[in-house]
Amino acid sequence: MRRHMLVGGAARRLIGPFLGSPEGRPFPPNNNNNPFERSLRQLSGAGALPQLTKDRYPQVKRRDFAELNEKHLGYFKNLLGENRVITDKDECQGFNIDWLKSVRGYSQCILKPKTTQEVSEILKFCNDNRIAVCPQGGNTGLVGGSVPVFDEVVLWTGLMNDIISLDENSGVLVCQSGCILENLENFADERDLMIPLDLGAKGSCHIGGNISTNAGGLRLLRYGNLHGSVLGVEAVKADGEVIDCTSALKKDNTGYHLKHLFIGSEGTLGVVTKVAIQCPPKPRALNVAFLGLESFDDVLACLRQAKRQLGEILSSCELIDNPSLDAVTSHLNLKSPISVYPFYMLIETHGSSCDHDEEKMHGFLESCMSDGLVRDGTTTNEIGKMKAIWELRESITEGLLHDGYVFKYDISLPTREFYSLVPVMRERVKDAVRVCGYGHLGDGNIHLQVTLKEFNEEVLRIIEPFIYEYTAKLRGSVSAEHGVGFRKPKYIHYSKSPGAINLMKQLKVMMDPKGILNPYKVIP
Amino acid sequence: MRRHMLVGGAARRLIGPFLGSPEGRPFPPNNNNNPFERSLRQLSGAGALPQLTKDRYPQVKRRDFAELNEKHLGYFKNLLGENRVITDKDECQGFNIDWLKSVRGYSQCILKPKTTQEVSEILKFCNDNRIAVCPQGGNTGLVGGSVPVFDEVVLWTGLMNDIISLDENSGVLVCQSGCILENLENFADERDLMIPLDLGAKGSCHIGGNISTNAGGLRLLRYGNLHGSVLGVEAVKADGEVIDCTSALKKDNTGYHLKHLFIGSEGTLGVVTKVAIQCPPKPRALNVAFLGLESFDDVLACLRQAKRQLGEILSSCELIDNPSLDAVTSHLNLKSPISVYPFYMLIETHGSSCDHDEEKMHGFLESCMSDGLVRDGTTTNEIGKMKAIWELRESITEGLLHDGYVFKYDISLPTREFYSLVPVMRERVKDAVRVCGYGHLGDGNIHLQVTLKEFNEEVLRIIEPFIYEYTAKLRGSVSAEHGVGFRKPKYIHYSKSPGAINLMKQLKVMMDPKGILNPYKVIP
Repeated sequence: MRRHMLVGGAARRLIGPFLGSPEGRPFPPNNNNNPFERSLRQLSGAGALPQLTKDRYPQVKRRDFAELNEKHLGYFKNLLGENRVITDKDECQGFNIDWLKSVRGYSQCILKPKTTQEVSEILKFCNDNRIAVCPQGGNTGLVGGSVPVFDEVVLWTGLMNDIISLDENSGVLVCQSGCILENLENFADERDLMIPLDLGAKGSCHIGGNISTNAGGLRLLRYGNLHGSVLGVEAVKADGEVIDCTSALKKDNTGYHLKHLFIGSEGTLGVVTKVAIQCPPKPRALNVAFLGLESFDDVLACLRQAKRQLGEILSSCELIDNPSLDAVTSHLNLKSPISVYPFYMLIETHGSSCDHDEEKMHGFLESCMSDGLVRDGTTTNEIGKMKAIWELRESITEGLLHDGYVFKYDISLPTREFYSLVPVMRERVKDAVRVCGYGHLGDGNIHLQVTLKEFNEEVLRIIEPFIYEYTAKLRGSVSAEHGVGFRKPKYIHYSKSPGAINLMKQLKVMMDPKGILNPYKVIP
Repeated sequence: MRRHMLVGGAARRLIGPFLGSPEGRPFPPNNNNNPFERSLRQLSGAGALPQLTKDRYPQVKRRDFAELNEKHLGYFKNLLGENRVITDKDECQGFNIDWLKSVRGYSQCILKPKTTQEVSEILKFCNDNRIAVCPQGGNTGLVGGSVPVFDEVVLWTGLMNDIISLDENSGVLVCQSGCILENLENFADERDLMIPLDLGAKGSCHIGGNISTNAGGLRLLRYGNLHGSVLGVEAVKADGEVIDCTSALKKDNTGYHLKHLFIGSEGTLGVVTKVAIQCPPKPRALNVAFLGLESFDDVLACLRQAKRQLGEILSSCELIDNPSLDAVTSHLNLKSPISVYPFYMLIETHGSSCDHDEEKMHGFLESCMSDGLVRDGTTTNEIGKMKAIWELRESITEGLLHDGYVFKYDISLPTREFYSLVPVMRERVKDAVRVCGYGHLGDGNIHLQVTLKEFNEEVLRIIEPFIYEYTAKLRGSVSAEHGVGFRKPKYIHYSKSPGAINLMKQLKVMMDPKGILNPYKVIP
C-alpha cells in the first residue's frame, strides 16, 4: 500500500506543492528506481523547473561573496579529486532545487567530501576567499533551507556515510553525518535497538540534516527530542575549525554544552560532520488504536487517559479531524475502519511485552468508552492493519491536494488550544473548499490546512498574518518542526522576542563573521 | 532511617569533605530544624569556618571589579527595599560558604530579588558599574560554583519561588527559578505528575540551579537529561537584557535554540529566572531489586538484559562494588539482604501497572539467574524494603568517611570501561584503606573513591593527574554531573578539545564582555 501511494504521489507532485506527507511516513526511499529520486536528479525539461529564487524573490539580494573561478575549482579538485567536484550543469540541477520545487538556486559547483578534514579544508578555503557555502544532506527540507539561494557552493554530505561504532552496552551509535536515517534504523534494528527518531523522509534524509534542523517526527512524544537524545556532535565552523563534542557520554558537565549550538541551527553556525546518538531498545510489542470522538474536549480527556493508562508505552498520539479524514476517504478511496465522527485519534504503543501492552490498551479503551469519551474505535497489533490505519493519517496531505491548492501551516500551540485555530480559520475563510487540522496532538503540533480550488492572493491575505498573530498571542510556534530555512525568517519574530533574535544574530556573527555558511537563511 | 543518617552525617561533616551522599538521596530538607541548614546559616565559630578562598588559592587573583560602596548599596536598597539587601556580616556568612565547606568568599552584600525585572535592574547596574555577581540558588553545588570567590555580590534566587502554571493536558510546569525542587515535586505529585529529575539535594536545591548546572540525578536513565525535558528558560544576561525563551512548547523550530546556552553554564552566561519543564505522569508501580554478581562482565550482560526485558519501565540501574557496600555494612551497621559478592546491582522500575511490572521484573530475574549472571538477589515493592535497599546505595559516601580521608571522583566512561579504572587505581595506590567504585551504571557515571587514614599529598600525586589522563584516553568526562564551578576549570581540557574551550571563551566574552557573572568559574 505504501508503495502504491508513493508512486501515485510522485506522479501527482507537479500539480501542487506537496508530495506524500512530509510529516508522515511515506517518503521515497533513496534508490534510483524511485520516480521522486529520478525527478530530482535528472530534471532537465524547462517546464518542470521552478522559477529561479533570485527571480521569484527579487527583494533578496546576492551578498558580496566571491564569484567562483577556475582557481577556486582547481583548489577543490586538487583537494577532493575530479570525481568529487561536480560542475556539470545537469548534474548540479538536482542539488539546486528543493524537494517541494518551491525554490531554485544556480550553484555550479557541488563538493562531495568524505572526511571531516576535507570539510574543514573546504570551509577554511571558502572563508578565506569569501565563497558562500550551502551545506546539503538528503535535501528533504520543507523551508528551502537545503538548496542554494544564488550560486553558493553546495557541500553535500552524502559520501560521509560511515557508521563508526555502536556500543551495544550503552546503545550509543556514532556515525558520520551523511548516513541516511533509514540505513541507521536498519543497522540498529539488527542489533535489537532503534533510532529515537522516525520521519517520513527517512529513506533520503541524512542524520546530520536531522540534527541541523532538529527534526521532530512521529514519536517525539515517547523518545524525546534530539537535544535530549543526541549525545555528541562534531561540527566544522565557517573558518574550518573542527569543534569536537562527540563524547558519546550520557553525562558530561565539563563546560558549556556546545553541541546544542549545532542542533537546529540549520547549518548556519557550522556543518555537522559526526554524531553520537542514544538508541533505545527496539520495542517487541506494537499496538495501534483508531478512535472516534464527538468533541475536542473529549479528545483532551482521552489524551490525559492515554498518558495515565498507557503511560510508559504510549509512543504516538495523533489527531485527525473529520474534514482531514474525509480528504482521504473521498479522494483516495481509503476506508476508515469506523463510522463518521468529528474527531479521530490514532494512538500507538511501543512496549516490551505483547500481553501487557494489549491489556493496557484494552483497559484504556474500556475506560474511555465507559466514560463516554470514545464513541467507537478499533485496535490491532496485526502489521497489515496497523499499516492501513497509519496510512489514513499519512495520506492526508496527498488527499488534500485533490481539492486544488493547499495552504499549509505547521504550528505549535498549548495543548488545550491545539484545535482552537481551526474553527476560527473556518469562519474567516468563507471561500475555502476545506479548512482542517491534524497532527501530533501529544506534542501540541498541529498541521492546519486551508484548501482552495486554486491559488488566491486575497485568501492568502485573509490567512496571513492573522494565523501568525493568533499563534503569537497564544505563545505558540509558527514553525513547530519544519524550521526556518529560506522561507520563514520573516516570521520568526512571531515566536521569538527581539532580545532572543538579537542574541541569535550575535551568535551568527561570532561563529561565522563573514556570513558564508548557508546565507539568507534562518536569521531575519 | 533517613533522618538518623542525616543527623549523623551532619555531626560528622567537619571531619571530611562530604556529608551524606550528594549523588544519592539523603540531602537535608529545607527547614530550620535541620542541623545542616542551621550550620550554614548560623555559622559563627571561627573554628568551623573553612579558610578564605583568597588565602587558600593565592594564585587566583581578584579581577579589577569595583569595590562595593555606599552609593551602590543605596541603589540596591532603593530597588529592593532594606529587607532584601543583606549586609549584616553574620547573615552574609552562610551565603559565602559552600555546602562542602571547601571554599569561602567574603561578600558583604546579598541581594534577594523577587522578579525578573529586579534581576534585570540589578545586573544592568552591576554591569554598568563593573560589580561582580555570584548567582546563588540552594547552594548545594559540589564544585564551589555557587559562592563568591572574593567579594562578589550574591544574587540569591530564593524569593523567586512562584509556581506560575501547570498545564495538566500537556504536563508542562512553568515556575520561577528559585522554587525548591522538592516543592515542585510535591506540587506535581498532587496532580498525578512528577518532575523528571530527582536529586539528593532536592530539599534545598532550586530548579534554576538544577538547570544552570545541568543536574543529572538518579533517574536520568529513564527520564532523560534537562536539555531534553526543559522546554523553556527565561534568563537575564549580564547587561540586564531579559532573554525570553519560555515558550513551554514541545516543538519550536524558530531559530537557534538559545535556552541550551543557560543549561549547564553554571550562571556564567546569564541568570535563569523562569523555567518551563515537561512533567511525565507519576508512576503507579514501583519495584526494586538488589542483585549479587560475580564479575563485571556479568554486570554488563545483566544491564543489557534489564534494558531489553524491563525496557520502558527501567528507571534506575546502579552498581555497587563489594568494597563500597562493605563501607556501609561494616561502618554503619546496615544489613545487606544478600550474601557477599564482588558486585551488586540496584535495579528500579517505574511503571503504570503493578501486575505487569512485577511480572516483567520476575521474568528478568529468572532469565538472569538461569543464565548464571545473577548469583543471588531480592526484589520488593514494599515501601519500607525499597527504602532499606536504596539506603545501602545512598549511605556509601557516609560509610566511606569512617575510613578517614576520602578522595572523590565523578567520572563518565564508556559503559564497557565503566569499572576498569577501579582495579587500575587499586594497583596504583598501595597505601589506600579502600579503593572502590559505585554509581549510575545505566548512565555510565561512576563515583570512584580512594580512602586513606588521613590526607596524604603524595597519594594525591599518585592519583592525579593520572585519573584524568586515564579518563581522557577513554574519552570520558572528568566531571560527569557535578560541573566545573571554581574547583575544576583546570581539568576541563581533559574532556574538551582546545577548539571547544576556545569557543566557550568566545561565548563568555560575547554574552558577558565585562566578565561580571560568576567570575573565576567554569572557563579555564
